[in-house]
Amino acid sequence: MQNIITKLFNIRYPIIQAGMVWNSGWKLASASSNAGILGLIGAGSMYPDVLRTHIRKCKIATDKPFGVNVPMFYPNIEELMQIIIEEGVKIVFTSAGNPNTWTSWLKERGITVVHVVSSLKFALKAEAAGVDAIVAEGFEAGGHNGRDETTTLTLIPMIHAQLKIPLIAAGGIATGNGMMAAMALGADGVQIGSRFVASVESSAHKAFKKAVLLAKEGDTQLTLKELAPVRLLKNKFYEDINHLYTTTPSKEDLKNLLGKSRAKCGMFEGDLEEGELEIGQISGLIDTIASVFDIVSTILKEFDECKSRISTINITTTNDQ
Amino acid sequence: MQNIITKLFNIRYPIIQAGMVWNSGWKLASASSNAGILGLIGAGSMYPDVLRTHIRKCKIATDKPFGVNVPMFYPNIEELMQIIIEEGVKIVFTSAGNPNTWTSWLKERGITVVHVVSSLKFALKAEAAGVDAIVAEGFEAGGHNGRDETTTLTLIPMIHAQLKIPLIAAGGIATGNGMMAAMALGADGVQIGSRFVASVESSAHKAFKKAVLLAKEGDTQLTLKELAPVRLLKNKFYEDINHLYTTTPSKEDLKNLLGKSRAKCGMFEGDLEEGELEIGQISGLIDTIASVFDIVSTILKEFDECKSRISTINITTTNDQ
Repeated sequence: MQNIITKLFNIRYPIIQAGMVWNSGWKLASASSNAGILGLIGAGSMYPDVLRTHIRKCKIATDKPFGVNVPMFYPNIEELMQIIIEEGVKIVFTSAGNPNTWTSWLKERGITVVHVVSSLKFALKAEAAGVDAIVAEGFEAGGHNGRDETTTLTLIPMIHAQLKIPLIAAGGIATGNGMMAAMALGADGVQIGSRFVASVESSAHKAFKKAVLLAKEGDTQLTLKELAPVRLLKNKFYEDINHLYTTTPSKEDLKNLLGKSRAKCGMFEGDLEEGELEIGQISGLIDTIASVFDIVSTILKEFDECKSRISTINITTTNDQ
Repeated sequence: MQNIITKLFNIRYPIIQAGMVWNSGWKLASASSNAGILGLIGAGSMYPDVLRTHIRKCKIATDKPFGVNVPMFYPNIEELMQIIIEEGVKIVFTSAGNPNTWTSWLKERGITVVHVVSSLKFALKAEAAGVDAIVAEGFEAGGHNGRDETTTLTLIPMIHAQLKIPLIAAGGIATGNGMMAAMALGADGVQIGSRFVASVESSAHKAFKKAVLLAKEGDTQLTLKELAPVRLLKNKFYEDINHLYTTTPSKEDLKNLLGKSRAKCGMFEGDLEEGELEIGQISGLIDTIASVFDIVSTILKEFDECKSRISTINITTTNDQ
């Protein structure tokens, strides 16, 4: 069955694997695309030549469509964009910045452009900039996050009420039930992050993957709001941030504590004490490391079961009306 | 049609009208019960004799079941509980405290007891205390809120996976689509607050009701986390809090700014500058003041339309499996 999202990307199921720093290399992206969803390479943690290598390996590993996620704050973003064009990638997700900056340039080169937002205002701004679809990401999402703290459950219907282009929900979705909830709220598809961190094919360190399995409800928190808000698994580094906050730190103080390679240290190198461990609230529901194929199969099975269950709910009956 | 929630309360639809301070008097509660959902009187903002009056008026205004919401931090809670028993109320929702304190006492007197929680840990604690059902309220909810900041989309499935008693979802739900999303996630029913603030029968000041209609995405924020976290519509009082935060205030400083009657001043007396305006994120989706009957009818209609729409989504087909 085709819907507006599967048609846009020429994929089988309206599910996008999020392009996450230190997690989403060619292995994860190609496995996702081969499983019938849209795989994304996360360029935010890659040097330009590393991105080129990942794109080339991904093209060998799958003949299905895949894309690249590019955070707009990337220092040499021009280089990344040039490589994406040179290597023939046809789908780009931009995030964390102004959708006006790159959308026209990419569209002129035949790229399908999706922009990630966390507020209604930026959703409409991205639509006006000419993107093909938007990802709306709620407060519960892992990684970098919006200042308004609007949750997926409230953000999706508010954007759906005003947006004309396709809408992809993100934040807090790891199961078929979550996907059904998002579509009930008006989403045309879903982007899933945390669930794919705990996949066989994710490039996350195995210690980080295990930490995701152990995470329970309440184990993540949004912090560093003065810099770029980020949702972290609570660990020593998170406690260090909290300790620093008791001293009324300046932005510089916070930047100094954060340093340069916390995310790599935590998620890629597996230092669970000193590293920055970005993960969503839904990690509390994730308790297995599985292959991407099995994760997708499970989500689809859950979605169908949820649909059957919901179809039996008859709150109103003809007599009641 | 009956489900576990409609049977528990002997109501027609598995919807609870939240018992909100300064909003949920006998008019709102009786209108809700007469519309086939469960009406709740919010005792948190009532002196004991005022609660007695509201219960008596509610009994005259409806022959359907209704209940009382009692926040556990209420100073003379024994008086409230005594009045509830004396007046023959059969349903009590307890919130903001330890479910062990009153559950047995109420159950021994034949009361159906529901406890409101914002975390998995307290959901299981309430279940162990012997309550009949729990309300799980996400971060997007208005009013007082949990410290873990877990959103409805992630909290409901995490609790559903472990809870054996009926589960009512709250926070971010104002429409039939939101209700469907909650039930897809595993809720047996929903509690709705903000939508009923903007009802004809709510005792909120008309200026506050209008402010709710004008609220957009991003216009609320959770604050005062050092006292009891509360979600507020951003106004002068909210800005005053933020200004105070720049000075590293003590708890006492925050308490002094909050003062004694901010909530009454804002929600009941309509002072939009100096008052405390408690409302959920979903206020951004609310744009009419309607009667409770019309609100409930709309939610049921939306729910049915959503069910029809969802039933046509065929992501997997027999050939795909």
